[in-house]
Amino acid sequence: MAVNLKTLQDELTLLYEAKDYKALKAVLEELDAIDIADFLDELPWESFAVIFRLLPKELGHEVFIHLDTEAQEHLLNALEDPQVGELIASLYNDDLADILDELPADMVKRILRNTSSNRRKEINILLQYPEDSAGSIMTTEYMHLEQDLTIEEAFQKLRRTKAKLETIYSCYVTDRRNVLIGVITVRDIFASKADALVSDVMEEAVVSVNTHDDQEEVANLFTRYDFLAMPVTDRENRLVGIITVDDAMDVIKEEAVEDMQKMAAVMPSEEDYLTRSPFSHAKSRILWLMVLMFSGYINAFILTGFEEAFLLMPALVGYIPMLTGTGGNAGLQSSATIIRALTLEEISFRDWGRALWKEIRIGLVLGLMLGAVNCVRVYFMDGRNFPLALTVSVALLFIACSAKILGCSLPMLAKKFKLDPAVMAGPLINTLLDAITLLIYFGVSYLIIFSRM
Amino acid sequence: MAVNLKTLQDELTLLYEAKDYKALKAVLEELDAIDIADFLDELPWESFAVIFRLLPKELGHEVFIHLDTEAQEHLLNALEDPQVGELIASLYNDDLADILDELPADMVKRILRNTSSNRRKEINILLQYPEDSAGSIMTTEYMHLEQDLTIEEAFQKLRRTKAKLETIYSCYVTDRRNVLIGVITVRDIFASKADALVSDVMEEAVVSVNTHDDQEEVANLFTRYDFLAMPVTDRENRLVGIITVDDAMDVIKEEAVEDMQKMAAVMPSEEDYLTRSPFSHAKSRILWLMVLMFSGYINAFILTGFEEAFLLMPALVGYIPMLTGTGGNAGLQSSATIIRALTLEEISFRDWGRALWKEIRIGLVLGLMLGAVNCVRVYFMDGRNFPLALTVSVALLFIACSAKILGCSLPMLAKKFKLDPAVMAGPLINTLLDAITLLIYFGVSYLIIFSRM
Repeated sequence: MAVNLKTLQDELTLLYEAKDYKALKAVLEELDAIDIADFLDELPWESFAVIFRLLPKELGHEVFIHLDTEAQEHLLNALEDPQVGELIASLYNDDLADILDELPADMVKRILRNTSSNRRKEINILLQYPEDSAGSIMTTEYMHLEQDLTIEEAFQKLRRTKAKLETIYSCYVTDRRNVLIGVITVRDIFASKADALVSDVMEEAVVSVNTHDDQEEVANLFTRYDFLAMPVTDRENRLVGIITVDDAMDVIKEEAVEDMQKMAAVMPSEEDYLTRSPFSHAKSRILWLMVLMFSGYINAFILTGFEEAFLLMPALVGYIPMLTGTGGNAGLQSSATIIRALTLEEISFRDWGRALWKEIRIGLVLGLMLGAVNCVRVYFMDGRNFPLALTVSVALLFIACSAKILGCSLPMLAKKFKLDPAVMAGPLINTLLDAITLLIYFGVSYLIIFSRM
Repeated sequence: MAVNLKTLQDELTLLYEAKDYKALKAVLEELDAIDIADFLDELPWESFAVIFRLLPKELGHEVFIHLDTEAQEHLLNALEDPQVGELIASLYNDDLADILDELPADMVKRILRNTSSNRRKEINILLQYPEDSAGSIMTTEYMHLEQDLTIEEAFQKLRRTKAKLETIYSCYVTDRRNVLIGVITVRDIFASKADALVSDVMEEAVVSVNTHDDQEEVANLFTRYDFLAMPVTDRENRLVGIITVDDAMDVIKEEAVEDMQKMAAVMPSEEDYLTRSPFSHAKSRILWLMVLMFSGYINAFILTGFEEAFLLMPALVGYIPMLTGTGGNAGLQSSATIIRALTLEEISFRDWGRALWKEIRIGLVLGLMLGAVNCVRVYFMDGRNFPLALTVSVALLFIACSAKILGCSLPMLAKKFKLDPAVMAGPLINTLLDAITLLIYFGVSYLIIFSRM
């Protein structure tokens, strides 16, 4: 697919440069909005309005949603007020709220001037939900059916509806106070007799979320129940909006890469990588680097405690990076595997014992293999010094087991105490393991080498 | 939501233990299949058949899909052949293929004995697609509409259809040789005039994938175009099945945690964490641990080259773990951030220059901050040794910049050359950075300390 898209972009650029607008228009009309938005991204700002005017209105409006903020700004600047009004009227409330959230103040004013007062109210409510909440990703437009309609009447209503709705496949039934009492899908409607009542067919046990629920939990409900849409209610159980599966999918993608960032000691941000300033980037990285650096000092402190040992056998120093490296890697392997299993709900906290026992055995297997290979290697490469070879190998066995124990336990404990497993697992484990590795190494070297000197 | 589910599980367990099957049945009937499956997971095997028989047939069959392989096996053993036949008949082909893939051979035989020969053929084809391919996650059941039907006739067909289909919202139109020529959604059907033809209304520019396309690319198309379903064709462009959004969502979740594992130097596996043996776990971890360990020896080699320096100023040794730790962390931060931006398509290879310039500036900011803090700290904590303090600080500045350069470039180069950015980024960077950190540290210490001795 990717290859086709690339060729397509080149073809479009050629047509644009040749000013063959007629042919360009014909090709563009066949394309999906997102592909057109990608094509525009390659062009200078001046050309935006030209191309936008070539597009059928509806397609143009869809393209607008997919542009980045800077491009949207340029395009809005190039359009007249009536065109802006039409464009804004065509957007779903959740998309409009997202766009307003990013645009500069003067642009927001211009847009709101071109919006009905009713809609301004709705948008304002959406803008007030906390970031990452269900409310922030929901849309307020949904298909509403009255419970005393017959299936035939429901059909007619669906066919007549001209409302701009993200989905019509899930229809919602509420009582007079707008409390959600049921959901009925178009599929249910197809499968039911024409004279049945909506209230007979609808599903009353509706899974819904609250406006202030975390978007990640909401997305997990989508994967759990395979929903296409989910209703969002306020604290009084009144229906205020719906979340559609495409938005849930975006959340899943974002949250997964967020976990990866946290494991890598970066505080996550939703800003676009390239538009973000170096200072803003540095801000989300400096805290953990400082914390980890200071914990590095604990290791420096441990090392100075063994300065004498280096003077007696300087060759000991050479193995420190390999040992701390291996310990850190082994621990990270476990924590990433455990976080994966937690995320995919393969394990939960009550499996801690089983997981720990498994990781200890994995640690033993790995430790024995690494130890054996190293014993041979150190012996032959480092002056046939058997005590040194034995020290490195035995230390590796203990280090591998400790790494697996810690790598398994920290994310699970974090989950249990509602801390973030990814943060606990990544940076913290590495640092703790450095200290543990050094202590094991010197403990073992004392037992094997120095106690006999 | 999670709290409610927990309370529910407790309530069900109480009813089950009190053998109040009537009340249990009433509660279960209101639940979603996945919640019942979770409840069964807590119970001993013997109780499976008891509870399964309490459930309405259709719900029972859905519950079966959500059980893990071991539980499915036990349940199948407890059922008679006709019940097994009914259960199997109710499953979608893709679910059945997944289940057969996991079950032991004798159980597979028993199931195939209870399946029609036509269906056996379909399932066999599904089972032959490579793991991670579009074919392996598609289902062969979809809604087919003839192009010369009127919209009204399409309606009637949709209402009459008793076929077991995962979705009816996207209907597919093919020519006589079964080549895909269009797609029409139920929404299009609702919005069209009753006497229009399907061929007039259908979308002819259909985005489709090939059976052998990678499932991750397919999932990315879902997020790109906000599809609910996507057609899968063979090499001759004939329609062979469809992929639904719920399966695409699972792929996104799996692939994202897979990236995290790769960054953590674990070779990913799709097996369930707890059922996998320690040896199998060890196998996916040992290779990278060995590779990384041997590269640790490069550092040992570098360190031995500086043994003399340690003897002259042993305090130098104490800062090694902090410096390699900080270098590794800084590099990992960049690579995780870059991989995030690549995954969310915020950047591509052509932005390498811009990203590099940004990371260098971030490295300068971070390096100056870390260096300043350390200069003060080392000076006052380590015997007011100013050359040592200066060495550590200046080294940190260079280390931070190198880490950012490498952390930014490696994943982007990997992407460019179709290697796996996550593998390149995680384990490799850390190891390379250890060596670079040591070289920088000793280079700087030579310039500042030893050249003046």
